[in-house]
Amino acid sequence: MQAQNNCFIGFEDDFTQAKAVLFGAPFDGTTSFKPGARFAPNAMREDSWAIESYSPYFDKDLEDLELFDYGNLELPFGDKKNALRMIQDLTQEIIEANKIPIMIGGEHLVSLAPVKALSKKYKNLQIIHFDAHTDLRNDYLGEALSHATVLRRIYDQVGDGNVNQFCIRSGLKEEFEWAKKHTHLEKFTYNTLESCVRRLKEKPVYITIDLDVLDPSVFPGTGTPEPGGISFHQMMEIIKILSKLENVVGMDIVELSPKFDASGVSTAVACKTLRELVLATVK
Amino acid sequence: MQAQNNCFIGFEDDFTQAKAVLFGAPFDGTTSFKPGARFAPNAMREDSWAIESYSPYFDKDLEDLELFDYGNLELPFGDKKNALRMIQDLTQEIIEANKIPIMIGGEHLVSLAPVKALSKKYKNLQIIHFDAHTDLRNDYLGEALSHATVLRRIYDQVGDGNVNQFCIRSGLKEEFEWAKKHTHLEKFTYNTLESCVRRLKEKPVYITIDLDVLDPSVFPGTGTPEPGGISFHQMMEIIKILSKLENVVGMDIVELSPKFDASGVSTAVACKTLRELVLATVK
Amino acid sequence: MQAQNNCFIGFEDDFTQAKAVLFGAPFDGTTSFKPGARFAPNAMREDSWAIESYSPYFDKDLEDLELFDYGNLELPFGDKKNALRMIQDLTQEIIEANKIPIMIGGEHLVSLAPVKALSKKYKNLQIIHFDAHTDLRNDYLGEALSHATVLRRIYDQVGDGNVNQFCIRSGLKEEFEWAKKHTHLEKFTYNTLESCVRRLKEKPVYITIDLDVLDPSVFPGTGTPEPGGISFHQMMEIIKILSKLENVVGMDIVELSPKFDASGVSTAVACKTLRELVLATVK
Amino acid sequence: MQAQNNCFIGFEDDFTQAKAVLFGAPFDGTTSFKPGARFAPNAMREDSWAIESYSPYFDKDLEDLELFDYGNLELPFGDKKNALRMIQDLTQEIIEANKIPIMIGGEHLVSLAPVKALSKKYKNLQIIHFDAHTDLRNDYLGEALSHATVLRRIYDQVGDGNVNQFCIRSGLKEEFEWAKKHTHLEKFTYNTLESCVRRLKEKPVYITIDLDVLDPSVFPGTGTPEPGGISFHQMMEIIKILSKLENVVGMDIVELSPKFDASGVSTAVACKTLRELVLATVK
Amino acid sequence: MQAQNNCFIGFEDDFTQAKAVLFGAPFDGTTSFKPGARFAPNAMREDSWAIESYSPYFDKDLEDLELFDYGNLELPFGDKKNALRMIQDLTQEIIEANKIPIMIGGEHLVSLAPVKALSKKYKNLQIIHFDAHTDLRNDYLGEALSHATVLRRIYDQVGDGNVNQFCIRSGLKEEFEWAKKHTHLEKFTYNTLESCVRRLKEKPVYITIDLDVLDPSVFPGTGTPEPGGISFHQMMEIIKILSKLENVVGMDIVELSPKFDASGVSTAVACKTLRELVLATVK
Amino acid sequence: MQAQNNCFIGFEDDFTQAKAVLFGAPFDGTTSFKPGARFAPNAMREDSWAIESYSPYFDKDLEDLELFDYGNLELPFGDKKNALRMIQDLTQEIIEANKIPIMIGGEHLVSLAPVKALSKKYKNLQIIHFDAHTDLRNDYLGEALSHATVLRRIYDQVGDGNVNQFCIRSGLKEEFEWAKKHTHLEKFTYNTLESCVRRLKEKPVYITIDLDVLDPSVFPGTGTPEPGGISFHQMMEIIKILSKLENVVGMDIVELSPKFDASGVSTAVACKTLRELVLATVK
Repeated sequence: MQAQNNCFIGFEDDFTQAKAVLFGAPFDGTTSFKPGARFAPNAMREDSWAIESYSPYFDKDLEDLELFDYGNLELPFGDKKNALRMIQDLTQEIIEANKIPIMIGGEHLVSLAPVKALSKKYKNLQIIHFDAHTDLRNDYLGEALSHATVLRRIYDQVGDGNVNQFCIRSGLKEEFEWAKKHTHLEKFTYNTLESCVRRLKEKPVYITIDLDVLDPSVFPGTGTPEPGGISFHQMMEIIKILSKLENVVGMDIVELSPKFDASGVSTAVACKTLRELVLATVK
Repeated sequence: MQAQNNCFIGFEDDFTQAKAVLFGAPFDGTTSFKPGARFAPNAMREDSWAIESYSPYFDKDLEDLELFDYGNLELPFGDKKNALRMIQDLTQEIIEANKIPIMIGGEHLVSLAPVKALSKKYKNLQIIHFDAHTDLRNDYLGEALSHATVLRRIYDQVGDGNVNQFCIRSGLKEEFEWAKKHTHLEKFTYNTLESCVRRLKEKPVYITIDLDVLDPSVFPGTGTPEPGGISFHQMMEIIKILSKLENVVGMDIVELSPKFDASGVSTAVACKTLRELVLATVK
Repeated sequence: MQAQNNCFIGFEDDFTQAKAVLFGAPFDGTTSFKPGARFAPNAMREDSWAIESYSPYFDKDLEDLELFDYGNLELPFGDKKNALRMIQDLTQEIIEANKIPIMIGGEHLVSLAPVKALSKKYKNLQIIHFDAHTDLRNDYLGEALSHATVLRRIYDQVGDGNVNQFCIRSGLKEEFEWAKKHTHLEKFTYNTLESCVRRLKEKPVYITIDLDVLDPSVFPGTGTPEPGGISFHQMMEIIKILSKLENVVGMDIVELSPKFDASGVSTAVACKTLRELVLATVK
Repeated sequence: MQAQNNCFIGFEDDFTQAKAVLFGAPFDGTTSFKPGARFAPNAMREDSWAIESYSPYFDKDLEDLELFDYGNLELPFGDKKNALRMIQDLTQEIIEANKIPIMIGGEHLVSLAPVKALSKKYKNLQIIHFDAHTDLRNDYLGEALSHATVLRRIYDQVGDGNVNQFCIRSGLKEEFEWAKKHTHLEKFTYNTLESCVRRLKEKPVYITIDLDVLDPSVFPGTGTPEPGGISFHQMMEIIKILSKLENVVGMDIVELSPKFDASGVSTAVACKTLRELVLATVK
Repeated sequence: MQAQNNCFIGFEDDFTQAKAVLFGAPFDGTTSFKPGARFAPNAMREDSWAIESYSPYFDKDLEDLELFDYGNLELPFGDKKNALRMIQDLTQEIIEANKIPIMIGGEHLVSLAPVKALSKKYKNLQIIHFDAHTDLRNDYLGEALSHATVLRRIYDQVGDGNVNQFCIRSGLKEEFEWAKKHTHLEKFTYNTLESCVRRLKEKPVYITIDLDVLDPSVFPGTGTPEPGGISFHQMMEIIKILSKLENVVGMDIVELSPKFDASGVSTAVACKTLRELVLATVK
Repeated sequence: MQAQNNCFIGFEDDFTQAKAVLFGAPFDGTTSFKPGARFAPNAMREDSWAIESYSPYFDKDLEDLELFDYGNLELPFGDKKNALRMIQDLTQEIIEANKIPIMIGGEHLVSLAPVKALSKKYKNLQIIHFDAHTDLRNDYLGEALSHATVLRRIYDQVGDGNVNQFCIRSGLKEEFEWAKKHTHLEKFTYNTLESCVRRLKEKPVYITIDLDVLDPSVFPGTGTPEPGGISFHQMMEIIKILSKLENVVGMDIVELSPKFDASGVSTAVACKTLRELVLATVK
């Protein structure tokens, strides 16, 4: 008799045969407003079974892909450096086995770790980033490593012109100014995503989706809800565009904080976004 | 001194004079994810008094119609066959008195009972169905009677070509395939509703609205929230189109689960949908 | 050592230097459905620090304006006349010092008090009003002073043709009829706002926003949620239009009831609306 | 076909045959902290069906008594005087028919109305009062009629020595001092209840239970939770003692605010307390 | 790389070596008031990691026992007979391997299945039952299999005098009468538990704990909260007494409904009760 | 016109005249289960106005003491060392002015900072500690500074025999063993508190109350609820005993997490505990 594994729907294969490997990074130690993103990976696993593995949008099924769910890392909440190192080590192991890492956060800071691992392997790693917030501060209340600085730290890894930011609707004036020189940042909308994807089509791309890019009407369960975001229909349009990328080498979705949305809608949105994103980009 | 009856707003007439009869079918015994639709009818009655009986959309008032609110059936939660039989008997009684039955669920399975009663009276009964889910499985975990099979069972009653499904965005691949042969199923949208209504204009029509057809942003209080649904404005457009039907012989709205939306918004949405639907189709 | 004052973000100046003065009027004594608007001002102050003071929409910052946050009035919940008098007195004091009063309610009835104070100073005071509800009853369950009669009482102050109502989607038939003769009322939408603003450009204008004008999908935290409202994007469009007014002499936002939205989204929406409204109209 | 009446369990008889008449007084217009007691009567009716009508404590059944549930009064929230008058009129009607009025509040202020009606009929009316708070202020923020002054107003009706207060654990110093001269007030406990009941055995007694006398551990759903109250077992002991009274002429339970306890426990506590109180005192 | 299994704390061994086997029976299909017990097993697994595996009460550690967590059965919600059969089959398999089955419900009806399996193996199986409710009806709304009849059905298996019920505080008069002849039922308290345990010391005993035996102050998260229950300290006393049993052959804890207690306290109570019960009786 | 300061009830004096200084330390960066203690200080300030400043237990009033409320420190969530340093600096400033620091956490780790400051001034500083958990680990997932290690770190400051722990009901076996040699630890109860207080009567004492020492029935709003704690009545007994101390030089109450208890009861408990503790020990 075998213990039942409580995995994400459709991620029921073994590590060795898998093309992509899902894992949870339940860390929210630098969250400045409302913590709780640490509960996202398990909530998503449990509620994923209330959606189907089949997508009528892409007419594809997660069960037709080889997918493995590793479970969660056990991370120390008061020690961000150590937590990031543990995430980086796991990502390293996954990409060394030639598999695509798929991470569920946690707060946005966790995205730094897979980018560090991947940017060693891929010299010209490209970032596509969806978010309500710029996340480009150089430090936040004195901290260089923070959910509010993570894209700046990612920029430190991949360099000028390789970070592409969409739908951003909040930040300091200085961040928007800084972005003009160093990243592609589109305020509020994603009109340039299509051309961006054409440009990056064959390059190695890491996708990071801070789910608070969605309007809080459909995604209230997040630490810092910011009104004025995109609808779920627009998220689906975005994923359709992303499906034209041919070399997605890693991805994450972060900042679901399920306990702040008792209705479970935010968790359902996160699950469906992940399903569609995987069906669109894991090839 | 008479006890006060806690009815739905505007449903304050007697049975004998009424054109339409509202009743609650608080059954959710086959719900597979999050049960609680049983609490919908009473929640809707209480909160209906926070909306008006007058509709500025149709410039009509529920008080200008003769409407009776029977209250709820008392149904056994562990015995779906018996529950369905009790609902069917009540519907039978209503239609024998030449009145229009209006049912508040409960889970979607309850819709089968009025359809059974009505399809005896009307040989060419037509179904118009709004839902996030196909509900066309032949069985669900071995059960033939289930919220996930209810449209298939309804199809068994009314036959090929008489089930019209709109806005469907989730299901098994097999269900979508099966629908191609046996029902009119429009994925995601309701572009063909107008022509469907023209076609069915004078035929006897039963309308069943699974409220999860709405996007969970505006209707989080449901057992299986499925992102990507229609807005409330679109629901109003739909009802405007339905107002052209001339022979609506019964209707239901199902799958409100009020305790999963403490804000009360989902209940308000259900109440207003019911008000508009009644004003549009009870003639 | 000085006690820290818990003010709204960016309202950190002194009274004497300030151009505009914010205060809370935490009264909800006539609320007929779900009370709780009394908790709005403090909730908004606390959560305002989770949005930025900088607006990427207007490329302006609250910190570049001189703004003072007075705190809350302490109002007796069972004595509406006395409560209104206390609000009127404070507004009086603010406008006598040539500053713009900005009020956070409370229920909508509180809007009557600043209008009374302002209509003494400005003979041709104009009202611009956003709401789900007409609020034009002459009395409500026998009460002349009520959240459901407040625009009628405001009309009593400013007279025929000086009340401009937008996006109204609920009311009695009589109210809509009455409005045809006495106010400018646009049902459901705000298509005529642009021309209204052109007309009132240089006149003294008071803006009152009942936040339930927003769709409950994005603003569930209110006493009487009414489906079918505007989106947050539309609220931003409205504020952009209002930014063309040159003589806004007072404003309020009312009917946030934060405890009915545990996710905090409604409070965030109220905070961002206030930030944008102030940046658009305080000159 | 008759509409189903949604009454409190066991209160299923007609007015004429009834010994006691239950009604709801859903008023909370003077609540100073967290309003919501208006929702108590309907919540209790709905949830009463989850407890039994039979009490294993008294070995008695509500169904063996003749009991009528009138429903709720529709009260104006911003007009306390009018609301109190309406409650007094209904109580008057009930006692003129020689029936015992049983009122579910609402906030505590509503208790004044039945006491006014009863003190006209019974010259030496006695009050037995359970509460966390003294409620003996002469005015509250200038209001003479308030939840915080209600026992003082009741004292004005019945006079020195006729108000008996138990388990009080919060108030102003002045209130406790005042009580020493004018009421029987036992702080924290109910050790003197037994002798009080012996003394009042044959006198006409009105019982008023502010449910916040219970510890918030078992009764969180109330406007002003005050830690350090009695347990439910102690409430049962109290009711056992009260069962020795031979002439209870009226009673109320007030200050349940069901929406502040989503678990439903507070409502269940209120229902069971009412069941036991009725079985103990209606003879 | 192995997927992480999300087991109950301390249940980390393999099936073959284990002395006891935990499994979840997430069925609540006959719940008559508030469903949701289906969510208990996974909620308990996740939150068990917030308590320790070590008990300072018994000075024992779960890690010193060999324990296996099988996970959950996937049960059809609308088909109670089939669900019970599946549970019985699993229990059968466990006891055939000479291991002790430990079940987390689900509603109370699930207890019938392991009793059926065990009563085949042990001719003189004894039941020790803790509950707020008698659960002795012969049928409930016509259903013979129901949460309200389960102890009657268990009685059908084990016969007169072999069911021992403690702390019962709610039921029909008939149930209490029936119990006098057929079971050992102690109303409200557990004074006779000590002598019962002495009597059954070496006999095969099945323990079934309906967690609503606890007072709703400490266990609000249950479908039918019944005020007046035991405290957690008393639960610990009970478990201490049960630790003297020498032949416990199976056990369950049922009726946690975690979504009705957002604070997580009820789940913590269930976890700690299970830890202590296992440490006390698995030998 | 002065901005209103939103202070804790009764803490309305200036710094210079004050005997004791309250401040908030809203840090929860090392919380391992459910974060949110950062919201405690502001929640307590707001809700403190719903209890009185007068205590009928001690017949004393906060208004008769000179008390100042500084407000909150703004602490970096991802940088525990820096956060602790900022708290220590503020405490230093307070004790240099010969005032008593009163801290509201935050998680328990914050207690280390005032102890560090005070142990410099008072060579023989004594700790009295109430908690559900030992908090005596040497490190937690590799972190030396953690909510789970804080009493061990405090011990490092004050040395053998100077830490007195009461009511502890959870921990590792190793922690209980270690305590036997280095601290005075009473499991479950506080029977030895009286003699401890006699012993420490004139010594400088720091009191630290982790509110999870209370049973989760009355204090559900905490990060790691642990069933089996003390009642509020017992907390009052404890404070009565503590009132015999003559040289309390500092105190804190920590681990309220208000968003996990929407009823507000936990916040009310924290407020009343603080009021009583201050009235008992500030002399």
